[in-house]
Amino acid sequence: MFRHLVRRNDAKIVFLIMDGLGDIRAPGFPKTALETARTPNLDRLAREGLCGRSLPISPGVTPGSGPAHFALFGYDPLAPENDVGRGVLEVLGTGFELSHDDVAIRGNFATTGADGLLADRRAGRIPHEECVRLCRKLQDGIREIDGVSVIVMPVREYRFGVVLRGEGLSPEVEETDPQLVGRAPLAPVARVPEAKRTAGIIATLVARCNAALAGEPKANSVLMRGISRMPRVEPLQARTGLRPCAIASYPLYRGVAKLCGMDIVDTGFSVKEELETLRGAWGRGYDFFFVHVKKTDSYGEDGNLEGKAKVIEEVDSNLPILLDLAPDVLVVTGDHSTPCALKGHSWHPVPLLVHSKSCGADGAQAFSESECDRGGLGIFPARNIVELALANAGKLKKHGA
Amino acid sequence: MFRHLVRRNDAKIVFLIMDGLGDIRAPGFPKTALETARTPNLDRLAREGLCGRSLPISPGVTPGSGPAHFALFGYDPLAPENDVGRGVLEVLGTGFELSHDDVAIRGNFATTGADGLLADRRAGRIPHEECVRLCRKLQDGIREIDGVSVIVMPVREYRFGVVLRGEGLSPEVEETDPQLVGRAPLAPVARVPEAKRTAGIIATLVARCNAALAGEPKANSVLMRGISRMPRVEPLQARTGLRPCAIASYPLYRGVAKLCGMDIVDTGFSVKEELETLRGAWGRGYDFFFVHVKKTDSYGEDGNLEGKAKVIEEVDSNLPILLDLAPDVLVVTGDHSTPCALKGHSWHPVPLLVHSKSCGADGAQAFSESECDRGGLGIFPARNIVELALANAGKLKKHGA
Repeated sequence: MFRHLVRRNDAKIVFLIMDGLGDIRAPGFPKTALETARTPNLDRLAREGLCGRSLPISPGVTPGSGPAHFALFGYDPLAPENDVGRGVLEVLGTGFELSHDDVAIRGNFATTGADGLLADRRAGRIPHEECVRLCRKLQDGIREIDGVSVIVMPVREYRFGVVLRGEGLSPEVEETDPQLVGRAPLAPVARVPEAKRTAGIIATLVARCNAALAGEPKANSVLMRGISRMPRVEPLQARTGLRPCAIASYPLYRGVAKLCGMDIVDTGFSVKEELETLRGAWGRGYDFFFVHVKKTDSYGEDGNLEGKAKVIEEVDSNLPILLDLAPDVLVVTGDHSTPCALKGHSWHPVPLLVHSKSCGADGAQAFSESECDRGGLGIFPARNIVELALANAGKLKKHGA
Repeated sequence: MFRHLVRRNDAKIVFLIMDGLGDIRAPGFPKTALETARTPNLDRLAREGLCGRSLPISPGVTPGSGPAHFALFGYDPLAPENDVGRGVLEVLGTGFELSHDDVAIRGNFATTGADGLLADRRAGRIPHEECVRLCRKLQDGIREIDGVSVIVMPVREYRFGVVLRGEGLSPEVEETDPQLVGRAPLAPVARVPEAKRTAGIIATLVARCNAALAGEPKANSVLMRGISRMPRVEPLQARTGLRPCAIASYPLYRGVAKLCGMDIVDTGFSVKEELETLRGAWGRGYDFFFVHVKKTDSYGEDGNLEGKAKVIEEVDSNLPILLDLAPDVLVVTGDHSTPCALKGHSWHPVPLLVHSKSCGADGAQAFSESECDRGGLGIFPARNIVELALANAGKLKKHGA
């Protein structure tokens, strides 16, 4: 970051991030999701603006959600402190105030057969209300293990969070999820001698959770993942002068935003609700708005091209709510690609669109992978997008005489 | 720089730099200056050569003239020693031999009202002859302050240079230009205790200059800017083996060139005169020629698209003078963009053209922003252009077996 060049003004920047937006043409997938979706508003922005491909980390490197978002916010996604565990991200995303000594865990409710082997790593994707009920049940029965406080909180559907709070804890413990059904959950193994006690506490925790859940039809066991501790991340405002807020319906993304020092604005789940939340937050003194749309990624992971294209259309048709606010700079991109043909995150650079009065139009005709490949931004490092947005917002001074 | 790969030969490289060349399409500006200008010669070179976009510093970062030229010459524009003060650049550009202990200042002649407030920071852009007369007047009256020699020299129009030469000086003094009319000039403030004496000398200098100018109709006061000291910059010849010379009618660019160890060849002001100077210098043992055209930037700063396009046409129509010399490698680009829509330097990558027998044509059809966006060089770091030119000139050996 060129922080010595930053100057503050009231220009407003919006980052509209469609998770896993990028896609590929592949056998069985002659068009990408963006090419399939009808997107008159995004296409007009592309014609007026500048297109390219955002490179999340480095060529060939597939990012997780944490590093991908750190990069979008201008942080080095390869710096160890920006490779944040899921436990921390999910717990922060619930609004819980983590301290730097806490160990945070992301839990999965899971289904185990009578043989002790995993039948479903997500307990049939139980509804969120079930998650809330089960977490209360666990918390009621488990308050403390070996002098360490245990805090259990619902995250979303089959996901919950655990915080261990006490002296002498270590996050250096392997997770218990074997990642495959038909296997037994793993024991929590300490990676370093100092983590042996924490591993023991987590083993006890798993045993007590499983005992408490014994009678449940689906969620009869737990997996402990992303055992981690909160890093010290320099706030975005200190780096850029921006006064940032985040509008994200999924806890993990609120967690990343919070780590970067963003205010979290409560929002509903649909794209329309998120954009209406944006409208509500508009006059409140913020000049950077991170809006996160999750479902593009979810459908990509399912290989559901039509579903993914429909989410993009939902974004496009609700875009006037955002455009009516007349942001000075609008960035539309994804954190990474989730090609339907691959059913998972990938390394492919992500379609990127920058729109402002001073961006300079490059003649792109639509917001799509192929037009972005020919766009004026070229292959553009994700972690420089914030600087480009600052420049377009008049928030960066000239370097040198 | 890959200096261990350098080998010398007689191939000649020309860098034709049109200052502020890059432009953008924006509301009110449906075409860029390059797209507006009729440029049959440049277009032919683009068809035969390789196009792209030169990135001066880093995405979103707007360069000043100093760092932008350092980058073009292959130096790290972000290294502190390459962020050189305007005082040094302007004084060197006059041909003055600065020593490393001197403090150099870029002065503005300005107009102050009876109320002591600035009415014109450029004294109505007085003609150059006036500048020469006024500098002589100042120099005749001021030779020494507190044991320090004071040397005053005309630069161009309302700009002059001052050199302070003596013991114990420091360049860590704030400039006196408030950057806005209607304000009083600022006092020269020391940024560090060691600079207090220098600040005092500059305060005395300002008072004595203003007293000497009291009767002048326009240039009745001075502003002191870019108070700086000459950095130690490794000569281009040591880095690259090149024997470089600079043809630039404006002092600041001669200053940068001189800092990089280039010989300065005297030249006239028009594009034609500059290219004829190039012809005159051709057989004199140089193999790197930096030719600087200023007016593209000046018209860009005025938002005058037609004027900027006309300068580009002037370059194009005089280009045969250069092409008749048959340089082995010709690079045409700008140091940065100065879009007419923005009336100032900007961060946008600059159209770049490389022409040689071994460049490899990329199929670009014209020298324009849009064709350069699709060119084979892509977004190309400015500081690697010298290496690319060396390669095209056969002056870089293979790396490794």
